[in-house]
Amino acid sequence: MSAPIIAIDAMGGDFGPRNIVQASIACLIATPSLHLALVGQASLIEELIASHRGVDRSRLRVVNSSEVIAMDERPSQALRGKPESSMRVALELVASGQASACVSAGNTGALMALSRHVLKTLPGIDRPAMIAAIPTRTGHCQLLDLGANVDCSAEALYQFAVMGSVLAQILGVANPRVALLNVGTEDIKGNQQVKLAASLLQAATELNYIGYVEGDGVYRGEADVVVCDGFVGNVLLKSSEGLATMIAARIDSLFNRNLLNRAIGALALPLLKRLQTDLAPARHNGASLLGLRGVVVKSHGSASVSGFQSAIYRAMTEASENLPQRLNNQLETRFRDDQG
Amino acid sequence: MSAPIIAIDAMGGDFGPRNIVQASIACLIATPSLHLALVGQASLIEELIASHRGVDRSRLRVVNSSEVIAMDERPSQALRGKPESSMRVALELVASGQASACVSAGNTGALMALSRHVLKTLPGIDRPAMIAAIPTRTGHCQLLDLGANVDCSAEALYQFAVMGSVLAQILGVANPRVALLNVGTEDIKGNQQVKLAASLLQAATELNYIGYVEGDGVYRGEADVVVCDGFVGNVLLKSSEGLATMIAARIDSLFNRNLLNRAIGALALPLLKRLQTDLAPARHNGASLLGLRGVVVKSHGSASVSGFQSAIYRAMTEASENLPQRLNNQLETRFRDDQG
Repeated sequence: MSAPIIAIDAMGGDFGPRNIVQASIACLIATPSLHLALVGQASLIEELIASHRGVDRSRLRVVNSSEVIAMDERPSQALRGKPESSMRVALELVASGQASACVSAGNTGALMALSRHVLKTLPGIDRPAMIAAIPTRTGHCQLLDLGANVDCSAEALYQFAVMGSVLAQILGVANPRVALLNVGTEDIKGNQQVKLAASLLQAATELNYIGYVEGDGVYRGEADVVVCDGFVGNVLLKSSEGLATMIAARIDSLFNRNLLNRAIGALALPLLKRLQTDLAPARHNGASLLGLRGVVVKSHGSASVSGFQSAIYRAMTEASENLPQRLNNQLETRFRDDQG
Repeated sequence: MSAPIIAIDAMGGDFGPRNIVQASIACLIATPSLHLALVGQASLIEELIASHRGVDRSRLRVVNSSEVIAMDERPSQALRGKPESSMRVALELVASGQASACVSAGNTGALMALSRHVLKTLPGIDRPAMIAAIPTRTGHCQLLDLGANVDCSAEALYQFAVMGSVLAQILGVANPRVALLNVGTEDIKGNQQVKLAASLLQAATELNYIGYVEGDGVYRGEADVVVCDGFVGNVLLKSSEGLATMIAARIDSLFNRNLLNRAIGALALPLLKRLQTDLAPARHNGASLLGLRGVVVKSHGSASVSGFQSAIYRAMTEASENLPQRLNNQLETRFRDDQG
């Protein structure tokens, strides 16, 4: 395993380059084999780096780029109108082999469009899927797609299942249980795409397909990989974030209602803080774009310094485990089996 | 306003008639104007009634029916194979004017199919929608559809918006803010049905349409009525239930880890119990089937006695407010405007 070089889009996200530079330097210090390329407005990035001490510049390169993609910019505009954006230049470092992965906290739609254009998808994959881990009663589950693909064919759902299963294995789950998200667990439930995808998955001997899972079953930990279209996955992820935030606020307000409750709340605070961190892994760890000829990790736009660090580590793992090649092999096996 | 008569499917749900009879008697005692008709195996129901004292039998009728629809039975089988099911007989009491509403905790798919067959839908409504309230940071929001319609046209989403808005008004919200659930708030986001529904809603002057809302915005209380297809709504509702249950379990386990935590937990227990009740209003209050020529409320299959009581009260409110007629008027206004 050679030393990974990660290209970082230093300009993306809600908070600008300060957090991203800080997270990058923290990762460099913690991981002596890591090399980073920070892409963006070089003078600003250099200034931010200079404010830190003990930075090993032999492992930290700054790559200038003159443009930034705004968080609300249309993907088509990002694709056609900004050849010098930090996001695009970072992806081009991966495409040219100068980096083994890219991390960005920028505009999700633009990252999808640019990744697909610059890196290309794996053979047989039309569009990348976005995947992240959510907590369950028994551990974690990988959920995809999270909004990259609002309408999905049964074939696309099948491909998501294959890709999610490979990623779960890389992340340490042996023989991951793969399920399709549905409105019931009986055969007759669901829409046409889901029913068709179920028959494709039942026939896929390379997968440990366990059938349908419902929304509550996801959090009960019934599956290691949960597959759905991007509309449904996006709603599940965001509504869960919203609910967890609401519950945290309610707990705060319950514990603040009077003096006795405040005293109990002060005692319970460390427990409640840990709970809130546990509930926001997608915000914390970032999401991966699967199905590309390169590793791309999307950090949450409002990720903290430690959140961006987690996204860098996620990219390191996927690069060193050679995720795109392994996905390719799995997909090829399947095509070969289909033809055999 | 005449005294409401509510027909109760006494045999539906996970726990059989005991809880349902108990809840019914509690409602009769608390509401002197209420009349109930308990439908099911008469001997069993009479036996359960006899175990309660002080029941005003002049307001409590028992209607015998010889069949029960199982919780896992196919809707088509319930529709064609069981003319004497408690659910169907209860709905027929509404259709014949002997009752003004029906409450059942039974098989949801069967209730949908039988309601549609026995009561018929309102003019212009093809299929009923299922709606329930979920808690938000600022109060509650009505979410529909919850799984009755897995694929929805833009026109169906529009009808859901009209029906949800009328129900929210009946439940006390003046000028309810209506939103479409989507994966982003920009115009370009979403699938074809959602984009088309957005143009229909933008043109609907009778509605206070506020645009798109995302999953997290639902819990932030950005809208009073949130419209989506039944697949998405079902996943949102069930995953939220699953997440709330998981969080409750995590809180329990955090507070049980050692003696100090247990002491804090004992102090915090009443606060946490209240939170859990707040988070399960759909489980607690039931859901309504909208778009029928009669009031039908679906209680959760595993509702407690107080949960089933809430469902009866919900049915009473909808019946006394004449929900089906008001929906019909709204829909007629719209058709008239379209033609004018």
